Amino acid sequence: MDAEERLNLVKRNTQEIITEGELRQLLKEKNHPKGYIGLATTGRVHIGYFIPMIKVGDFLRAGFKFTILLADIHAHLDDQKAPFELLDHRVKYYKEVISAMISSLGIDTKNLEFKRGSDFELDKNYTLDMYRLAALNTFDRAKRAAAGVVRFGENPKLSGFIYPILQTLDEQYMDMDVQYGGIDQRKILAFARENLPKLGYKARVEVMTPMMPGLQGSKMSSSEEKSKIDLLDSAETLKGKINSANCPIAVEDNGVLAFLKYVIFVYKSDSSQALEIKRAEKFGGNIAYDSYEKLEHDFLDKKLHPMDLKNAVAEEVNKLLEPIRHKMKGKEELIKKAFP
Amino acid sequence: MDAEERLNLVKRNTQEIITEGELRQLLKEKNHPKGYIGLATTGRVHIGYFIPMIKVGDFLRAGFKFTILLADIHAHLDDQKAPFELLDHRVKYYKEVISAMISSLGIDTKNLEFKRGSDFELDKNYTLDMYRLAALNTFDRAKRAAAGVVRFGENPKLSGFIYPILQTLDEQYMDMDVQYGGIDQRKILAFARENLPKLGYKARVEVMTPMMPGLQGSKMSSSEEKSKIDLLDSAETLKGKINSANCPIAVEDNGVLAFLKYVIFVYKSDSSQALEIKRAEKFGGNIAYDSYEKLEHDFLDKKLHPMDLKNAVAEEVNKLLEPIRHKMKGKEELIKKAFP
Repeated sequence: MDAEERLNLVKRNTQEIITEGELRQLLKEKNHPKGYIGLATTGRVHIGYFIPMIKVGDFLRAGFKFTILLADIHAHLDDQKAPFELLDHRVKYYKEVISAMISSLGIDTKNLEFKRGSDFELDKNYTLDMYRLAALNTFDRAKRAAAGVVRFGENPKLSGFIYPILQTLDEQYMDMDVQYGGIDQRKILAFARENLPKLGYKARVEVMTPMMPGLQGSKMSSSEEKSKIDLLDSAETLKGKINSANCPIAVEDNGVLAFLKYVIFVYKSDSSQALEIKRAEKFGGNIAYDSYEKLEHDFLDKKLHPMDLKNAVAEEVNKLLEPIRHKMKGKEELIKKAFP
Repeated sequence: MDAEERLNLVKRNTQEIITEGELRQLLKEKNHPKGYIGLATTGRVHIGYFIPMIKVGDFLRAGFKFTILLADIHAHLDDQKAPFELLDHRVKYYKEVISAMISSLGIDTKNLEFKRGSDFELDKNYTLDMYRLAALNTFDRAKRAAAGVVRFGENPKLSGFIYPILQTLDEQYMDMDVQYGGIDQRKILAFARENLPKLGYKARVEVMTPMMPGLQGSKMSSSEEKSKIDLLDSAETLKGKINSANCPIAVEDNGVLAFLKYVIFVYKSDSSQALEIKRAEKFGGNIAYDSYEKLEHDFLDKKLHPMDLKNAVAEEVNKLLEPIRHKMKGKEELIKKAFP
């Protein structure tokens, strides 16, 4: 792959890159640049994580040495979503289950590593820089940066405002070229770009992918939270959740289509497979799609029924989850400790 | 000295102790408890610092092992009052000049030590506890704690809200029994009492002395800031500043009387000296006081004129500053580096 092909692979399905010019230059200069994504080790991992993990695969194929940061301190700073006493177990669980996801996607992990936040975020120089950035930024500035990611209630904890500073320094202290995250991270990543140079460090390239609408609709809610498909859900549970997903006839913006576009078709096309949709002869018989665009076209044209999509997605997701369930067998104790 | 005498010595001239019962118990249990005061290494040291330093002498005589914490990180957190690059020099300057003050007061320094904040406040466990307290406290709680000490402008820096957390953890990580500070620290010290037990640490005893009105009046202002008497002011400058001090005839609440009460008479009575006030025969001739109360009585009774007081204070302060000026000779370069 030449630099331009690598660039296109990294760009695939992204929503924004700050800046594309810097990324192009980086890929010209380095065959193996360093990139990472931070995952706050909060709740259980659901199938939405396939989107960033597929993207991690893109980075790896583009020659990156890639790190998955298990951000345990971040998890605790975000209003104690992860109680301090549970962090060891949560970190272990995340590492196990994310590894299983990645191997289920068939991604080559030669250049992939996991790192735990508290293993370097408590170093003296890191902490000193944290205090320096806290003294260089107003409370309001930190709040604006955090607002998209940290859930501030009516009476927010102090820790949430420190959160963007750690994410800024992670780029420097892991010696990264690129940080990758969801577009919800945009304000934090812009904060990092603005702040690293104040300490004499270079601003990093930030790569962002869009947020996928949840299966129940595009707004977050606790009922939707419940409907999220856990990586360890049984085939039956998973089928039930997908069947009750919000996917109106001929409407474009929904979680089922998004999952098809950002996960299933990426995975299929990378392995040169088509998506098979099975249906009875009376509904038109089986049909195969080799691109998302054709499938979307037929769906908007009412040639594909929501039930056809849901059945196909349920089957494909189940194929992805089967090896994960298998790998996680015998680790029930760990999961119980992480989520008592 | 028995425990009760030691208690009375520590209590002398304090405004509040949280709690006196705990302090009494501590002095019964330990012959050499550990106490400290934190000095943020911000601006130049003025004669107002004699008040806490006299009190440090009380702690030492009561058997304490006492630490003066040169709080360099605090100084930077307080809206960067001490630019990061100058902290090394400021810390050196504080250590030199505070040592000179203490020796000018004739205090036995066998059980006194200096410690620099950044020498232990950047340790991993300390930092982890800092994040934990940031996650346990709301922003509003931290703000209320800091408000009396940290100068918040219209657009406050994030760092000022972290400040009380460091002061809380200093008590634990220096393994102290008692923290001593001005009554302006009250809300931070109460925050420390409330928060250490949340991490499983014990709450410490907090000892507070009253704030002394400045020589220009009782309110802080930048003009008053200018009128502060620097430890290295010449005899002449010092005399000029004291002469222009606010000290209305027969009025009790002013900086000249406060300095007499909290510094000069403590020092005099501890060394069994009387305060000599020199004046011409036509104004009543020389007079000596062996207690502040008698002097205050005569002043309120108009038997002592403000000029009499000012002259005596200028002479006494000059006697205290003379050895400090002497010790700091040849250190002009350090001072220039600390305050460029």
